[in-house]
Amino acid sequence: MKEAFPSLEDIRQAHVRIRNFIEKTPILHASSIDELAGCSIYFKCENFQKIGAFKARGGMNAVLQLSKQQQMQGITTHSSGNHAQAIALAAKNVGTKAYIVMPNNAPQIKKNGVLALGGEVLACEPTLLAREKGVEAVIAQHGATFIHPFDNYEVIAGQATAALEFLEEIPSINVMLTPVGGGGLLSGTALACHYLAPNVDVIAGEPEGAADAILSFHSGKIEKAPYIQTIADGLLTTLGEKNLEIIRKYVKDIVLVNESEIIEAMRLIWERLKIIVEPSSAVPLAVVLKQKERFLGKKVGIIISGGNVDVSNLPF
Amino acid sequence: MKEAFPSLEDIRQAHVRIRNFIEKTPILHASSIDELAGCSIYFKCENFQKIGAFKARGGMNAVLQLSKQQQMQGITTHSSGNHAQAIALAAKNVGTKAYIVMPNNAPQIKKNGVLALGGEVLACEPTLLAREKGVEAVIAQHGATFIHPFDNYEVIAGQATAALEFLEEIPSINVMLTPVGGGGLLSGTALACHYLAPNVDVIAGEPEGAADAILSFHSGKIEKAPYIQTIADGLLTTLGEKNLEIIRKYVKDIVLVNESEIIEAMRLIWERLKIIVEPSSAVPLAVVLKQKERFLGKKVGIIISGGNVDVSNLPF
Repeated sequence: MKEAFPSLEDIRQAHVRIRNFIEKTPILHASSIDELAGCSIYFKCENFQKIGAFKARGGMNAVLQLSKQQQMQGITTHSSGNHAQAIALAAKNVGTKAYIVMPNNAPQIKKNGVLALGGEVLACEPTLLAREKGVEAVIAQHGATFIHPFDNYEVIAGQATAALEFLEEIPSINVMLTPVGGGGLLSGTALACHYLAPNVDVIAGEPEGAADAILSFHSGKIEKAPYIQTIADGLLTTLGEKNLEIIRKYVKDIVLVNESEIIEAMRLIWERLKIIVEPSSAVPLAVVLKQKERFLGKKVGIIISGGNVDVSNLPF
Repeated sequence: MKEAFPSLEDIRQAHVRIRNFIEKTPILHASSIDELAGCSIYFKCENFQKIGAFKARGGMNAVLQLSKQQQMQGITTHSSGNHAQAIALAAKNVGTKAYIVMPNNAPQIKKNGVLALGGEVLACEPTLLAREKGVEAVIAQHGATFIHPFDNYEVIAGQATAALEFLEEIPSINVMLTPVGGGGLLSGTALACHYLAPNVDVIAGEPEGAADAILSFHSGKIEKAPYIQTIADGLLTTLGEKNLEIIRKYVKDIVLVNESEIIEAMRLIWERLKIIVEPSSAVPLAVVLKQKERFLGKKVGIIISGGNVDVSNLPF
């Protein structure tokens, strides 16, 4: 029998479960951005979240759902991004070990992030196959539990808590936007809106240079991007199966934006909101500015996915 | 008879007066900064304030204290910094005109900021004498009221509302730090702490390359900096008379920091708090990191003064 989507109760329980381990992030707005966009935009600042990204929510929820014995045998994942740090932090929070398989060409700063949280970094060749083999080896050796970065209902329920907090604070929005990479944040957000604010349209932004989700959204099966070339380095991966199913059911639309639109939106967020966001987080604002008529006069929510960016290497 | 310092009641009334025109800015913290510093630091984010700086508070309070007739004859000041925009915004809020005298070598972005708020920019030669003459001409022609950027009790009471909000939210701090330029923020903060939390030590940070306040603090009269050479471009001016008097009475200490200490602290705030702050705002954190033993284990408040910085031109 197919497993059911996370329910509203699952999302609420996830929130109670992780509450003491995460930040309740603020929602910011800037009248100068509203004037430019012709609508009212509220930004939920997951860049202020633990480890600088929403991923802390899903990782924590998944780890807390394991049995004590499972937890003690350790957690493993393969990631060179924010999920690696999310798992390292979650493992630290429950007093166990995180084994993070990372491609040997991952930037040192990513490795350091995991090491600083007490995680163990296991280098592998930079291929998906090598990453999966690395995780299998950890499982064989330690009995550790693998936690997928997005194709996992506990992770999805955890990510959904950002939208839950948003809707509790500002229930009156008309539209909610997130970026889409693997689809963890988007599917969680879509579920939360479906349960709590069914009239809210959930729309995702995706870079033209990583346009897999829009294809999958229309075809109904996991598609690859025609080409990969984008500054939004958090959005390169293809969708997960579980994510796609939720997205097909509860997401209204996915909109593509190009590199200069992403960079312009990122600069606006930096300059007007005075916050540091990674390029992926600017994709939803780029959508709003690209399709102004669609959002005209509306009350728009945007979940800022994260703020992990090298401030010495900016696109402006 | 000498005018009295703003009272607690003056500060409270200022807060009620300006409340609908300003942001109640959030207070952020980052456990990774706490670990580095060896104390708990809470950052009051005036970079999220209207016009991106605390100056919105003082300007608004001063303009709202004018009679209706005074307001209608316009407001004037000379400034190329955040006070220019604060006055332009305050004038706009009460439906009158702002005449901002600016040196003709001021960056276009500063002029644009005033123009975007409906203010009028009057160019003058880049000397203090020319700026003062420019303001006198505006007063003669329009009967406009001059509002000094810091040497003014209404402005000081307005700036004090940032510390008022801070102490209402986190009353249990041991130390409060601000940067010091003209002394508006520092004197207001010192008054608020004196009234509401007399056990809190108020300490200011100042760049070595604009070290006038520390000299004035010790000599008791307005001194000039031995030399001016700092990235903290909001802190170049000498203290005002009214500010110095309050600072001598209620400030515990002024600490100098050098350029690399300021830049390191700025980078830490950007990377760990994920917020954009101007170099001046990093000066207090530089003080805490420089004198770690002094702050060890304490609960420290820092008022982040502003976030107006050219993100295309960073020191890292």
